[in-house]
Amino acid sequence: MPRTVDHAERRALIVEGLLRVAAREGLNAVTMRSVAAESGVSLRLVQYYFESKAQLMSAALERLERQSHERWEERVAELGSPPSARTFLETFFAEAFPTDEQSRTFQLVWMSYAVLAMTDPELAEQPFIEGPNRLERQLADILRRAQTDGELASDLDASAEAARLLTINHGLGTSVLVGQRTAKAAMAVARYHLDQLFGRPTEAKLASAGSDAHPSEPG
Amino acid sequence: MPRTVDHAERRALIVEGLLRVAAREGLNAVTMRSVAAESGVSLRLVQYYFESKAQLMSAALERLERQSHERWEERVAELGSPPSARTFLETFFAEAFPTDEQSRTFQLVWMSYAVLAMTDPELAEQPFIEGPNRLERQLADILRRAQTDGELASDLDASAEAARLLTINHGLGTSVLVGQRTAKAAMAVARYHLDQLFGRPTEAKLASAGSDAHPSEPG
Repeated sequence: MPRTVDHAERRALIVEGLLRVAAREGLNAVTMRSVAAESGVSLRLVQYYFESKAQLMSAALERLERQSHERWEERVAELGSPPSARTFLETFFAEAFPTDEQSRTFQLVWMSYAVLAMTDPELAEQPFIEGPNRLERQLADILRRAQTDGELASDLDASAEAARLLTINHGLGTSVLVGQRTAKAAMAVARYHLDQLFGRPTEAKLASAGSDAHPSEPG
Repeated sequence: MPRTVDHAERRALIVEGLLRVAAREGLNAVTMRSVAAESGVSLRLVQYYFESKAQLMSAALERLERQSHERWEERVAELGSPPSARTFLETFFAEAFPTDEQSRTFQLVWMSYAVLAMTDPELAEQPFIEGPNRLERQLADILRRAQTDGELASDLDASAEAARLLTINHGLGTSVLVGQRTAKAAMAVARYHLDQLFGRPTEAKLASAGSDAHPSEPG
């Protein structure tokens, strides 16, 4: 009987090798050869699973995106009862900001990939912008639900608000990575943005007696 | 008499060479040697003016930043009479978004530099984050003046608002460069943000009869 091979496991092993090289030396140091060496497999095996460096990096980004979503869900689960939209979004910023190795690597690989894609047509063809597109749609859904629930003012444009959340998150994350501001300062700006967003009076809030237009900070 | 040499002119010549290489092939293609070849000068001359690639790129960023500010000022001057803060900030977004070669190169070089700096201590030591810091302070000054003039609600935090403007600009610019959204769609989000910012009632607006809390779009 032939030895069975777990292809998914092997692909994961190679992708993890890429992530270690990228986190340590930057994406410029990522080559099919350096990833093979880091993963402890042959160059031919890397080439068997991934036709090009672009495909390999695309697989790495998909993995990083999935892991980031899982960690976001874990953070939300830890809150216990279903959180308000505001708390949910604060958890999103807390997860996305480059404060630990995993979130740093995700931002670093995404930005490196983006820069390479800007001048390399082969990379630009990869569907890597589907990641932020998916996230932006998810954020818009959260905001629309919050409008239905009366937590968010109904005259706001959920799509434009999702774009603001995504771009503020990206811009703040970049400023942390380059050392322009601390993760704590970035979080303060993110909370300020959520204050402005959820501080707008809604019909539900105006209807309830003694309501406060500015929600208190979650603990 | 020795032949006089215009050092500023020679430095500019070399920096322009770097920008052409970077715009065409990305910052990975920038080396002391490729810049010398592009500028039509010897490698030794490049090394005479710039000790390292980091110094050379830092000089290029300074030049791009200065040019971007000059173009912003030109756009403002074209408006004729001194513009409102809102129009001034709309002009800022219009200038900063990567819609032509100059603004594309600026964003591309800045992002490439940022990514390299994240994994290269020599580059991180360069004062390149002073660029966004300066811009953020300038934006905060514009917002504080708008508060004094009664154009912007006085309870807003000018520093946090400047950070939001800067990060939204950066995030939107990146999304345009990677092809996630068009420059037109990015401008719509930027205008939406300014609507939210300047739509908040101010004491001056409440005092003037028949005022509209939402200012009309500038022409």
